[in-house]
Amino acid sequence: MLEELKKEVWQANLDLVKHGLVLFTWGNASAIDREKGLVVIKPSGVSYDEMKPEDMVVVDMDGRVVEGRLKPSSDTPTHLVLYKAFGAIGGVVHTHSTYATAWAQAGRDIPNLGTTHADYFGGDIPCTADMTREEVEGDYERETGEVIVRRFAGIDPVYVPGVLVKNHGPFSWGKDAAEAVYHAAVMEEVAKMAAVTLDINPQATMNPHLVKKHFSRKHGPGAYYGQSSGEKGS
Amino acid sequence: MLEELKKEVWQANLDLVKHGLVLFTWGNASAIDREKGLVVIKPSGVSYDEMKPEDMVVVDMDGRVVEGRLKPSSDTPTHLVLYKAFGAIGGVVHTHSTYATAWAQAGRDIPNLGTTHADYFGGDIPCTADMTREEVEGDYERETGEVIVRRFAGIDPVYVPGVLVKNHGPFSWGKDAAEAVYHAAVMEEVAKMAAVTLDINPQATMNPHLVKKHFSRKHGPGAYYGQSSGEKGS
Amino acid sequence: MLEELKKEVWQANLDLVKHGLVLFTWGNASAIDREKGLVVIKPSGVSYDEMKPEDMVVVDMDGRVVEGRLKPSSDTPTHLVLYKAFGAIGGVVHTHSTYATAWAQAGRDIPNLGTTHADYFGGDIPCTADMTREEVEGDYERETGEVIVRRFAGIDPVYVPGVLVKNHGPFSWGKDAAEAVYHAAVMEEVAKMAAVTLDINPQATMNPHLVKKHFSRKHGPGAYYGQSSGEKGS
Amino acid sequence: MLEELKKEVWQANLDLVKHGLVLFTWGNASAIDREKGLVVIKPSGVSYDEMKPEDMVVVDMDGRVVEGRLKPSSDTPTHLVLYKAFGAIGGVVHTHSTYATAWAQAGRDIPNLGTTHADYFGGDIPCTADMTREEVEGDYERETGEVIVRRFAGIDPVYVPGVLVKNHGPFSWGKDAAEAVYHAAVMEEVAKMAAVTLDINPQATMNPHLVKKHFSRKHGPGAYYGQSSGEKGS
Repeated sequence: MLEELKKEVWQANLDLVKHGLVLFTWGNASAIDREKGLVVIKPSGVSYDEMKPEDMVVVDMDGRVVEGRLKPSSDTPTHLVLYKAFGAIGGVVHTHSTYATAWAQAGRDIPNLGTTHADYFGGDIPCTADMTREEVEGDYERETGEVIVRRFAGIDPVYVPGVLVKNHGPFSWGKDAAEAVYHAAVMEEVAKMAAVTLDINPQATMNPHLVKKHFSRKHGPGAYYGQSSGEKGS
Repeated sequence: MLEELKKEVWQANLDLVKHGLVLFTWGNASAIDREKGLVVIKPSGVSYDEMKPEDMVVVDMDGRVVEGRLKPSSDTPTHLVLYKAFGAIGGVVHTHSTYATAWAQAGRDIPNLGTTHADYFGGDIPCTADMTREEVEGDYERETGEVIVRRFAGIDPVYVPGVLVKNHGPFSWGKDAAEAVYHAAVMEEVAKMAAVTLDINPQATMNPHLVKKHFSRKHGPGAYYGQSSGEKGS
Repeated sequence: MLEELKKEVWQANLDLVKHGLVLFTWGNASAIDREKGLVVIKPSGVSYDEMKPEDMVVVDMDGRVVEGRLKPSSDTPTHLVLYKAFGAIGGVVHTHSTYATAWAQAGRDIPNLGTTHADYFGGDIPCTADMTREEVEGDYERETGEVIVRRFAGIDPVYVPGVLVKNHGPFSWGKDAAEAVYHAAVMEEVAKMAAVTLDINPQATMNPHLVKKHFSRKHGPGAYYGQSSGEKGS
Repeated sequence: MLEELKKEVWQANLDLVKHGLVLFTWGNASAIDREKGLVVIKPSGVSYDEMKPEDMVVVDMDGRVVEGRLKPSSDTPTHLVLYKAFGAIGGVVHTHSTYATAWAQAGRDIPNLGTTHADYFGGDIPCTADMTREEVEGDYERETGEVIVRRFAGIDPVYVPGVLVKNHGPFSWGKDAAEAVYHAAVMEEVAKMAAVTLDINPQATMNPHLVKKHFSRKHGPGAYYGQSSGEKGS
């Protein structure tokens, strides 16, 4: 069942390790089959070394395990909220990558300070509000998704394919699991660049003309980066 | 004698290198057999490349070598004090990992600023008091253990499985040597994240509701992370 | 056609990865055959793993593809402006390497603070002016070259073989593609050293006597570093 | 001639790369045969990948090549001054390692802030004075040695086996080339730790009682670290 998608999700999880984005089991990737309404996700707390494609867990949109002998990632409810709210996305990733997590702990949006950022994120990478006691003590992982969705009121998740959950860490997404991983790696890199930039010049700002230009070089009908129009350089 | 435990301790020492936590010979891991009252520890100043399981040294609770042709780690008396004072622990690790050591040199507790920290440490990671001249010139390594134990007055070492010895570096522990290594790696990572976080926002603080939530996701009777209850994600 | 040069450019692009200067496809190297008036450059958005020497694209000085089945790097017009303006250079490199990009985002010249810098750059590494709306919305990549050339009014590009494009990232050059890569690696290293230096001592300055001395140790008729006079230590 | 020493020096140079202390050709190691009054040193500007033991150059105490078909490192005169002034040392290393070089560029002594430092350096790691125009334009590499020697007036080079040359970078030494490399790696690590420490707490200071204790744990007649007395943990 969904063997191809399981392979993609398995590969995406391994790529998180390859890019240095996870220590131990601190990350997870998933993908959705929109037609079937099923999500494939990493099992909880399993070592990346031992994971096989067939260990990926299939859940329905209510989080019920449809296939798989292991428990799904404890962050599954967060992924499901994002798939429901953001209809254009096909893959979701969560990590505790060092610099993106530091910005999340700092409670600050990652400012758009250069074209590396602007090539993939059409604005600052937002940080969510504090979660309330009720949210934390209630259905916590689902509420984590809700606090993300509320933060994206007025923001197109395709133009800003990632978020910082305050005092927690980054989530990212894309058209599939591979692109969600790609955006997780970009977010970590621009998080590091932004921290170093503000260390050098606390007053650093972006040239506003570059914002639209760079994002549109790689996205939308006028894209001219890569070998075919609309390619995102992956 | 204790061949299985020697292998575990040997493996734990190699894992310190694998995780980038030690340069040269600057780290050591040990484990205890509580029934026999014996501790297995790394030999002093021996290269990790050449170390074999049978080089591990067996000492009794007074530090006397019971088996082994090499001298035990010079930090053995510190490990013994911790095993005596903290009855629930089975493994101890000491490193000079870069960021945890920087916090120890700064003389500051590592503040709990996010869920990465809260998943494993139920509060700030404490830094000990200055050691007095008498302590340093006396039975120094034993006194290093004592200054740690005094700092843990009122703190459960299972909830906070690590410490910074001021102007020295981190010690960590766990139910066995492997978990002590795991906590050493977590401590280094959260030490780096905290330094970067405060660089971005010197006023950063933790959401108090997340502290209990995250620790209890992975610990105790209500744990739901990993494949079995009580699993710690290792 | 230009098989030897294609191999050099292909190797230069792979060396960018080897030196840790590019993530994904975020970099490109080119070289020029001055006699034929042709430039060989990396194709756009192609993975370094899969790239072969025969994938390199040959363009003329107006950017028309003369040979190659793939589209050339979208930064090709910038490379061409540099080859036209700086007659002594044979290779050009662009990356988004972390620390050099942070200086570009900070909008600051990288100050010459030590001999590591002075060995290869005969002064500060300049940062360009902000690009105007007209430049960004016009022939953007060509204008990127022009803003670099304007910044080098009064600066010999052989003595300062690199630049920061504001809010974007570094370009470097050299007598061939390999030397341009070498200078890209030096720029990233001195960018990191300068950031750390100013963190330690915001008032740090260079000893002016060392500037000329170190550059001339490796360059020009009095050079005495390396195995032959004029060798640049590569 | 001196085949054993050539092998040691060759190995020491490769170890600089292994420890991440040199980029390209930016480092050199040498050793002395005190009885013969000859020094073996790395050739200038040769790639570490291609270097063989027989490429090492033998020079006398005046810097004349006694054996070898390649030019010796351009820093040879500095090494010779150190061997003449510091009679107890057998190996010298020079690198441009990132953090030690940043301290040199900052013009600051690396403060002794913890036991990692104190285990190998019996005090702060000193930074030299500015070199004068006459020194720089005169016999520059020899003068670099002289400025180091002057800085060590009243400091025992065995207790402080390294130095920062202002606006340049670190030199270190030891009983042989291997120990000089070891000290170069320690210096880089404590340089990084000190920078991070002061970032966390600008008022950080060392516990004075620990200084003597830690150095004497590994050095001199009372040493008890390692498998034999006097062993330095290498």
